[in-house]
Amino acid sequence: MLNSNTQSEFHLISMKFKMVREASLKIAEPLSEEDMQVQSMPEASPIKWHLAHTSWAFETFILKPHCKNYRVFNQKFEYLFNSYYNAIGQQFPRAQRGLLTRPDYKEVLAYRQHIDLNMLDFIEKLLPENESLINLLLLMINHEQQHQELMLTDIKHAFFVNPEYPVYKKSKSPEYVASPLQWKKHAAGLYEIGHKNESFYFDNEGPRHHAYLDSFAITSRLITCGEYLEFIENGGYQQASLWLSEAWSSIQSDKITSPFYWIKKQGKWFHYTLSGLIPLELNSPVMHINYFEANAYAASVDKRLPTEQEWEVASTDISLEGSYCDLDRLHPCTARGNDLQQMFGELWQWTSSSYNAYPGFKAPEGAIGEYNGKFMVNQYVLRGGSIATPRDHIRASYRNFFYPDASWQYTGIRLAETI
Amino acid sequence: MLNSNTQSEFHLISMKFKMVREASLKIAEPLSEEDMQVQSMPEASPIKWHLAHTSWAFETFILKPHCKNYRVFNQKFEYLFNSYYNAIGQQFPRAQRGLLTRPDYKEVLAYRQHIDLNMLDFIEKLLPENESLINLLLLMINHEQQHQELMLTDIKHAFFVNPEYPVYKKSKSPEYVASPLQWKKHAAGLYEIGHKNESFYFDNEGPRHHAYLDSFAITSRLITCGEYLEFIENGGYQQASLWLSEAWSSIQSDKITSPFYWIKKQGKWFHYTLSGLIPLELNSPVMHINYFEANAYAASVDKRLPTEQEWEVASTDISLEGSYCDLDRLHPCTARGNDLQQMFGELWQWTSSSYNAYPGFKAPEGAIGEYNGKFMVNQYVLRGGSIATPRDHIRASYRNFFYPDASWQYTGIRLAETI
Amino acid sequence: MLNSNTQSEFHLISMKFKMVREASLKIAEPLSEEDMQVQSMPEASPIKWHLAHTSWAFETFILKPHCKNYRVFNQKFEYLFNSYYNAIGQQFPRAQRGLLTRPDYKEVLAYRQHIDLNMLDFIEKLLPENESLINLLLLMINHEQQHQELMLTDIKHAFFVNPEYPVYKKSKSPEYVASPLQWKKHAAGLYEIGHKNESFYFDNEGPRHHAYLDSFAITSRLITCGEYLEFIENGGYQQASLWLSEAWSSIQSDKITSPFYWIKKQGKWFHYTLSGLIPLELNSPVMHINYFEANAYAASVDKRLPTEQEWEVASTDISLEGSYCDLDRLHPCTARGNDLQQMFGELWQWTSSSYNAYPGFKAPEGAIGEYNGKFMVNQYVLRGGSIATPRDHIRASYRNFFYPDASWQYTGIRLAETI
Amino acid sequence: MLNSNTQSEFHLISMKFKMVREASLKIAEPLSEEDMQVQSMPEASPIKWHLAHTSWAFETFILKPHCKNYRVFNQKFEYLFNSYYNAIGQQFPRAQRGLLTRPDYKEVLAYRQHIDLNMLDFIEKLLPENESLINLLLLMINHEQQHQELMLTDIKHAFFVNPEYPVYKKSKSPEYVASPLQWKKHAAGLYEIGHKNESFYFDNEGPRHHAYLDSFAITSRLITCGEYLEFIENGGYQQASLWLSEAWSSIQSDKITSPFYWIKKQGKWFHYTLSGLIPLELNSPVMHINYFEANAYAASVDKRLPTEQEWEVASTDISLEGSYCDLDRLHPCTARGNDLQQMFGELWQWTSSSYNAYPGFKAPEGAIGEYNGKFMVNQYVLRGGSIATPRDHIRASYRNFFYPDASWQYTGIRLAETI
Repeated sequence: MLNSNTQSEFHLISMKFKMVREASLKIAEPLSEEDMQVQSMPEASPIKWHLAHTSWAFETFILKPHCKNYRVFNQKFEYLFNSYYNAIGQQFPRAQRGLLTRPDYKEVLAYRQHIDLNMLDFIEKLLPENESLINLLLLMINHEQQHQELMLTDIKHAFFVNPEYPVYKKSKSPEYVASPLQWKKHAAGLYEIGHKNESFYFDNEGPRHHAYLDSFAITSRLITCGEYLEFIENGGYQQASLWLSEAWSSIQSDKITSPFYWIKKQGKWFHYTLSGLIPLELNSPVMHINYFEANAYAASVDKRLPTEQEWEVASTDISLEGSYCDLDRLHPCTARGNDLQQMFGELWQWTSSSYNAYPGFKAPEGAIGEYNGKFMVNQYVLRGGSIATPRDHIRASYRNFFYPDASWQYTGIRLAETI
Repeated sequence: MLNSNTQSEFHLISMKFKMVREASLKIAEPLSEEDMQVQSMPEASPIKWHLAHTSWAFETFILKPHCKNYRVFNQKFEYLFNSYYNAIGQQFPRAQRGLLTRPDYKEVLAYRQHIDLNMLDFIEKLLPENESLINLLLLMINHEQQHQELMLTDIKHAFFVNPEYPVYKKSKSPEYVASPLQWKKHAAGLYEIGHKNESFYFDNEGPRHHAYLDSFAITSRLITCGEYLEFIENGGYQQASLWLSEAWSSIQSDKITSPFYWIKKQGKWFHYTLSGLIPLELNSPVMHINYFEANAYAASVDKRLPTEQEWEVASTDISLEGSYCDLDRLHPCTARGNDLQQMFGELWQWTSSSYNAYPGFKAPEGAIGEYNGKFMVNQYVLRGGSIATPRDHIRASYRNFFYPDASWQYTGIRLAETI
Repeated sequence: MLNSNTQSEFHLISMKFKMVREASLKIAEPLSEEDMQVQSMPEASPIKWHLAHTSWAFETFILKPHCKNYRVFNQKFEYLFNSYYNAIGQQFPRAQRGLLTRPDYKEVLAYRQHIDLNMLDFIEKLLPENESLINLLLLMINHEQQHQELMLTDIKHAFFVNPEYPVYKKSKSPEYVASPLQWKKHAAGLYEIGHKNESFYFDNEGPRHHAYLDSFAITSRLITCGEYLEFIENGGYQQASLWLSEAWSSIQSDKITSPFYWIKKQGKWFHYTLSGLIPLELNSPVMHINYFEANAYAASVDKRLPTEQEWEVASTDISLEGSYCDLDRLHPCTARGNDLQQMFGELWQWTSSSYNAYPGFKAPEGAIGEYNGKFMVNQYVLRGGSIATPRDHIRASYRNFFYPDASWQYTGIRLAETI
Repeated sequence: MLNSNTQSEFHLISMKFKMVREASLKIAEPLSEEDMQVQSMPEASPIKWHLAHTSWAFETFILKPHCKNYRVFNQKFEYLFNSYYNAIGQQFPRAQRGLLTRPDYKEVLAYRQHIDLNMLDFIEKLLPENESLINLLLLMINHEQQHQELMLTDIKHAFFVNPEYPVYKKSKSPEYVASPLQWKKHAAGLYEIGHKNESFYFDNEGPRHHAYLDSFAITSRLITCGEYLEFIENGGYQQASLWLSEAWSSIQSDKITSPFYWIKKQGKWFHYTLSGLIPLELNSPVMHINYFEANAYAASVDKRLPTEQEWEVASTDISLEGSYCDLDRLHPCTARGNDLQQMFGELWQWTSSSYNAYPGFKAPEGAIGEYNGKFMVNQYVLRGGSIATPRDHIRASYRNFFYPDASWQYTGIRLAETI
């Protein structure tokens, strides 16, 4: 028989599971069934698909293999909602997810309820006998949280196609104030990098290992819209010398002259947010910047992006406080004062580090091994979380990764320099 | 004051307007809001878009220019639902129609009601004083009927992406019987071609003019699935000599070996219909054949496709009876006996005629001139209507046109030969 | 034993063969080996390839099947230099012809000599015993003449990539004078169309057949650069209503605002010719116009292009005099006076006729049947020959054909109207 | 006045310059003018272009800015032969280099002679007074050597398009023997990485800096064709779990089942070499492997690729002996015995390191700053040189870099593991 401590642990897991599952539906709440159907580019997915796929993950990795009497909701879903797990089987073509009108939203809701009931049953009855599965369960819960962030970024991208710039949810911008850009110094030395094994972490955050860093400084806050606007107005997008060669080719051929969600109307700058098109606030952190832009901005002020090791060292002992996913406030906060700020929440921060395996990294066996390892090429690491990240989902060792031309995530700029 | 004859004429127009408008909603009835949102290829459009665009046409060509006090439903719709009329203004990009989640279906319904009320008002009050507008009104009514056919072909195409092959509406196939292929002869001579000006017609059906035809014969019925299957089984898709050069390139590079909606499962042929995936019925007319395939099939039996003039001459004095849009029966009928059959309804029949202007054709001035004329290149004429065509929408001089690689329309094969 | 008349006939054929073969080398003369190697687009071919392929045609269609002891020059050439004859076998990929550096030019010359010797032997010894082969021989000779025109258009296209605008051969423009645009009328009636079987013709020129034409008028001369410039300056390329829908899309997306070889430098118009970049001569016929442009120009003056039947009727009893391939004079001539002029030579004239089979047309059996028939879709007929056409290669029934977006041929505009 | 030591130093530089310039022409010697014209893909360049561009580099970076009386050979060449230096000006489009038939080969030779004369004059007269330019001169000499390797890889790629598999130069394969795969261990620790400033180096090789490495082992030799064949025969190209996600997508869509230059004919494996198509030698090192394949192979034996730091540490104190560019022997050598072998020469070895800036790296000011820095994204570092690398061009700190899908370079596989 379990002691009460352990019981309360399982109770907490059960609570967390329910809260995370509800949070996904909450994000979908302001959306019509049409909104949940569309996919505006192959890299994005329909909201309905996210709702189904996260359920699929619990079904595929927990219920099917570990619950003897589990009754599959719909055999076809194994194929339809498999994102990229080759070890599970073929996948419905990614670029066509937005064309799957059936199952409709109502059926996906029924699917979610079916999974929820079975999962709660599993947590109550089977998990206590199989504690080894706790980590797998936490992985699936964190997986759903990752998709919650994607739901917000993907619907924003889809709405932006519409010339009426639909409002996902009205919310008021916080007050933004000017804050000086300070440099925070760190001595050279041998540092430890990677998760500390204290709580849940993804496989790509380990093993913890040593890295030698030269002395460096990192900025006290994120770069603001005003600072980035200065870069634009100084001809930043016309100056080849600031850009990586690939970036220069693409901004030339696509005629890019400002960040993805920025729009100039009658001489005034606006940017598109989940609360609609709003005037650009100069003191707010610049967002939806891709790696190429972050890099060019850094070059324009003769600095560079931090490596992910530098970022992690700088974030040691920093509180995780910040702006996270909050449907009533869909904007990042302002920086205030001279301390190191905006390290967590607000916006993902590009690092100069290519997403690669840490020394000694081995992907787990089986389908779960496909979760992170197979994407370790041509992507760049981002750190810190964003206003679209669930609050309890982040930590200092967390490694997010995207392609260098990706703009639809909540991404910003922090600078560094070798000193 | 109008006499009662005329009054009944306007009453008839009003009735027709209402029936056509209702028919569009009827087609949408079996669909979910998600179904109505999707666009499976740039050539197809979402059902919701069809419902809005047909309303837009009444608003743009009748209400705005001719009803002084007309209150526009939504200014933005002028841009959002303009299909291709450059004289009206810019158009929302065609390939992105499926990404417009707003207006949602409910708002589109409200838009339709707004248009209906205003149009009925216009028909009752203004039309009698502006009889010259009758033709314009009939054009718009016929326009909506054209979109009704497209609604059925577009949703079929979208559903076919789904590996579960959704059923639009259950319906029973008619009984199919074998019927001999006869040849119907016509003497050489000077014939008159084009509309006879007796009722409504599209501009591209005229002017009526003379054409000299050599003596020819045309088949008594459409080619059947069984006959086409023989072509496949004789290696038709592997025999370069039967295909136009462009066609051969594309079936090689796309690895095409059967018609678009055909599927072979465990050695048995099925085809996808609006009633789902059903076993191929050998005596039913083969459908969803593109021009390239129709041409290759004809070559394989040492015949050719008819010219549109030959088809029109053969159709003279033929009854318009046939299978038209009927949501309770979504399949073409069988041919019976030796008479000339299946000329109208059932399936559009490819002709060898490039879609071009008739001698003396002039497109009308203004936006309406863009209706047909600007598409007169690289497309081929089809005649006769189909099971997706509204019953009162067809006539002998009616010219439909599609690109030679188009397969998603209800298209079939009739053969001809010079004798 | 042959009588002297027949002997002289064979002597003439032999002479013609030699002259045509020499003419190809003459065209290559001003070119370096590098010039002869390149292929600037998939639709064009390297000069070296043309020289080899035309030899391949004599080898494949005459020497191999009809000369028992013929020794093949190189077995691999059957594949390398097959243009598009599926009945002969696989073809080296068209778009990669420019990458075949071996055989080099010297080896291709040796190949040509080998073919010449064997062909002359064939003409002297075997042809008299196989008079039925005369037509096949003439086809191959005419085939080489067609490639001579392509050599000139393809090298022009390749040179135009070079920002130094290389000169193929210096030559002086003729003096151009203004000439009024007259309309030549033709009565309605039943006309005979197609070759008269008097001399060599391609299969697509027959069978001769009847066509009924409404009364029409056709312009006395080709449209000039000055007239076309007026179209440009009146905003022709910005006026959607003048263009076919496909054309409008492509000039928008490719930002086309003038004919392919036209260049504006410091406010002055130039066009690229085989004699280099020269100032635009307003009275010279406008050339390198594609079907879309010809059509739009016609629409801008409220006229249309002639049908190919109208063109053929208008050309009856017209002398074939005109400017043909002459390496010392690479420019079309001016029109003078009021007569019907510039019907032959000068520039190919777009007709509104889609390239299709004449009534009763059957492609010959075997590989030769692929010569013309399989291209009868999506192309448009041009008539009359050009300054790149060999002088003895044209006739009133000659049907050239290209895709409507093709600009690199010597193509011009003649207008027509229904009267 | 210079003392004799310094004089001999300038004499040596002059000798080196002449030898390197001659070596480029030597590589071109077996090629026809046609061979030197072609460009088989955008990433490759024509041989003629390489010969011109390397001259352009001396002209642009040394003669124009530093020789007052230098007479430019041809003003247009500044644009035509600029590879990618935005600071110099616009560039002729990379993908069209193979279409530039003028200047022809003879003119390019004249250009080279003009540059040679002027450069020798510069080295003799001006360099002694401007010793600061020595490094720039050495950079340009090394630049030409880099292009010598590309000449060999680019012509190989172009020849491979030809189904006759042309021989660049006949040469005999060395005798290959089986050699055991040993693991060479290295202790964990803080190592110094980067050039030691003793001789010429590229900017990307510095600054020298510290890196902490976990203990690791590296294989004694390169992976052989026999070992790679086993990977293929064990279904390596069909096993998703071995491949990075991007790689799996591309081998699926392109149907890749073996290395780029491998061909199976009648059950036997051949590979294409500069000496033609030859039977695969099982004990020779496998070459033309891209990063994706190298990574998948490593995964298949449960190892990984070395990081560039590990490779550099392992290469410390290793002799630079190995097979380098030798036109009489175009094959890598066999490995013999148990020592660490094949570290230099033979084949470039993929590392798992994304090509990025070393800590403290700053690109130089001006156009020269574009040499390396702007390519630091999405490429992977290769180390060691190859049989196409000039012998005196390599060192332990040398960082080559290519995209992970690049196969046309002389690339092979060395494995590592964390111990």
